[in-house]
Amino acid sequence: MQKIRVGIVGYGNIGRGVEAAISAAEDMELVAVFTRRDPKSVTTRSGAKLVHMDEIASYRGAVDVMVLCGGSATDLPVQGPQIAALFNTVDSFDTHAKIPEYLQSVDAAARQAGTLSIVSVGWDPGLFSIMRAIGGSVLPDGNDYTFWGRGVSQGHSDAIRRVEGVKNAIQYTVPIEQACERVRAGENPALTTRQKHVRECYVVAQEGADRARIEHDIVTMPNYFADYDTTVHFITEQELHEKHSRMPHGGFVFRTGKTGFTGEENRHVIEYALKLDSNPEFTGSILAAYARAAVRLSREGVSGGKTVFDIPLTALSPLGRDELIKNLL
Amino acid sequence: MQKIRVGIVGYGNIGRGVEAAISAAEDMELVAVFTRRDPKSVTTRSGAKLVHMDEIASYRGAVDVMVLCGGSATDLPVQGPQIAALFNTVDSFDTHAKIPEYLQSVDAAARQAGTLSIVSVGWDPGLFSIMRAIGGSVLPDGNDYTFWGRGVSQGHSDAIRRVEGVKNAIQYTVPIEQACERVRAGENPALTTRQKHVRECYVVAQEGADRARIEHDIVTMPNYFADYDTTVHFITEQELHEKHSRMPHGGFVFRTGKTGFTGEENRHVIEYALKLDSNPEFTGSILAAYARAAVRLSREGVSGGKTVFDIPLTALSPLGRDELIKNLL
Repeated sequence: MQKIRVGIVGYGNIGRGVEAAISAAEDMELVAVFTRRDPKSVTTRSGAKLVHMDEIASYRGAVDVMVLCGGSATDLPVQGPQIAALFNTVDSFDTHAKIPEYLQSVDAAARQAGTLSIVSVGWDPGLFSIMRAIGGSVLPDGNDYTFWGRGVSQGHSDAIRRVEGVKNAIQYTVPIEQACERVRAGENPALTTRQKHVRECYVVAQEGADRARIEHDIVTMPNYFADYDTTVHFITEQELHEKHSRMPHGGFVFRTGKTGFTGEENRHVIEYALKLDSNPEFTGSILAAYARAAVRLSREGVSGGKTVFDIPLTALSPLGRDELIKNLL
Repeated sequence: MQKIRVGIVGYGNIGRGVEAAISAAEDMELVAVFTRRDPKSVTTRSGAKLVHMDEIASYRGAVDVMVLCGGSATDLPVQGPQIAALFNTVDSFDTHAKIPEYLQSVDAAARQAGTLSIVSVGWDPGLFSIMRAIGGSVLPDGNDYTFWGRGVSQGHSDAIRRVEGVKNAIQYTVPIEQACERVRAGENPALTTRQKHVRECYVVAQEGADRARIEHDIVTMPNYFADYDTTVHFITEQELHEKHSRMPHGGFVFRTGKTGFTGEENRHVIEYALKLDSNPEFTGSILAAYARAAVRLSREGVSGGKTVFDIPLTALSPLGRDELIKNLL
């Protein structure tokens, strides 16, 4: 069997996570990593070839699917449709509010090129989205709850780094255990943003900076921190490096709901929980699985922009359909 | 919008669960319940019409999908292919070892008739199967663990009721707590079937029946009991009714695995947990959701025998694709 030939676009944390996943997959091989940096300035962990982004088009016919590992803020809105015009693609675009617009632009490019692109693949958006869709389908009379953490939020860490006087920072999103327990017990509580998570910030201040003002700027920051109970801890660059350089994460999706005729209802709780030692490696593994699905469906003639909601599990699994049915159904 | 017109075949616990789910679904209506009993001897909870099974063929064109609610031991192997030759169908065939054979017979009938049948829908097989498939796809280097209960298994209770000399019976599947804890602790233990669950049977024997033979027939029954430590308690019909008439259930699916290059591995735990006050109503709700999917896909021209692995979430959800993407991705 010919292996699925994969390219990785962007060699940050997620790109390295995809590289590890492809290296471990028996049915896939990594053809090259594409970067905007000088390829000679970077070495890949697996020894895979590094190629400058400008040469990506010359890999048509040699790569079955490109896994796009750039950021959602500025990279993917440009790269997504551009590369979808050349290759099947998978990406982890994660700005929830802008997904429909992004999907539309990728879909247009992919349809015209006859390629297949799966956008917003990861664990949220991604696996958590799948759980919300299943939960809402089987318990239509109910409530969704999503909790994240304890884990590092890159967006919130970046927001702190933009505060004047901040040299470096890491932000942990932490679910409030009491709130999770109320949901788990089937109480169906109405929870405000503040009642679901707290935010813990570890901040390296620049020398001579006004720490009280930095703390105030962080905890009152609209959208990011103002709606949460936020704690700010000032630490040294060395402590940040030693204690906060790992990237664990996790979270929970709940669907609680009731069934039965009025007056005779029965209650049900569905819980999906992730405990991850490495957020980028887990995300990379999900991207690798959906890269497989993209190639399989593309070979069946499917094209256009897709999401995890469109992809049957027969396309995702390394097992064939018969094996899936025999062993896992 | 024309509602999806549903028929229910068999009016036991699952049939009543499907009835409740259809009654609560805005996009579906229950046309009739089909029974082998005298229709005049039964009243439906919703007031839906009861029709004798012999008349089912006359409902072609009036029912979009039949939800088959018979037992897996003797009903479905006959009814599944017969009714798939006339209608789109959904069923909860749950004898895991015989699913490929059953699927094949339903697939043959459905292909010839141009209908669509989704077999083995429920929470296990069903939602739990989906979780095993996702877990194995995103963490290929890992282990699956499925635990059930404590709860009543309809399939196992039915199997006991078919034993000669048994008047009535209820079977509880009980996870062995020690095994659960080892999995939770990340030990990745190798567990045999017998080390994970015990089966508790509460049996009402017919007067004069040979209890020792009944017990032997139960504990040695292939697929259902032979691989477990099974206890059989003989009780009265009154005690069964008083103490064992509720039908809670639950369970969880774990996927534990690692990612990363050798020597740098990171560990991850995925857990999917269900706590159900009513197993048949929850199963009925899942069947109703897949009945919707069967009709939608049939209208797109898809036919043949399918499983939950083949069905994208866009077909399952009461929400349209755009709404799903906007609200849940």
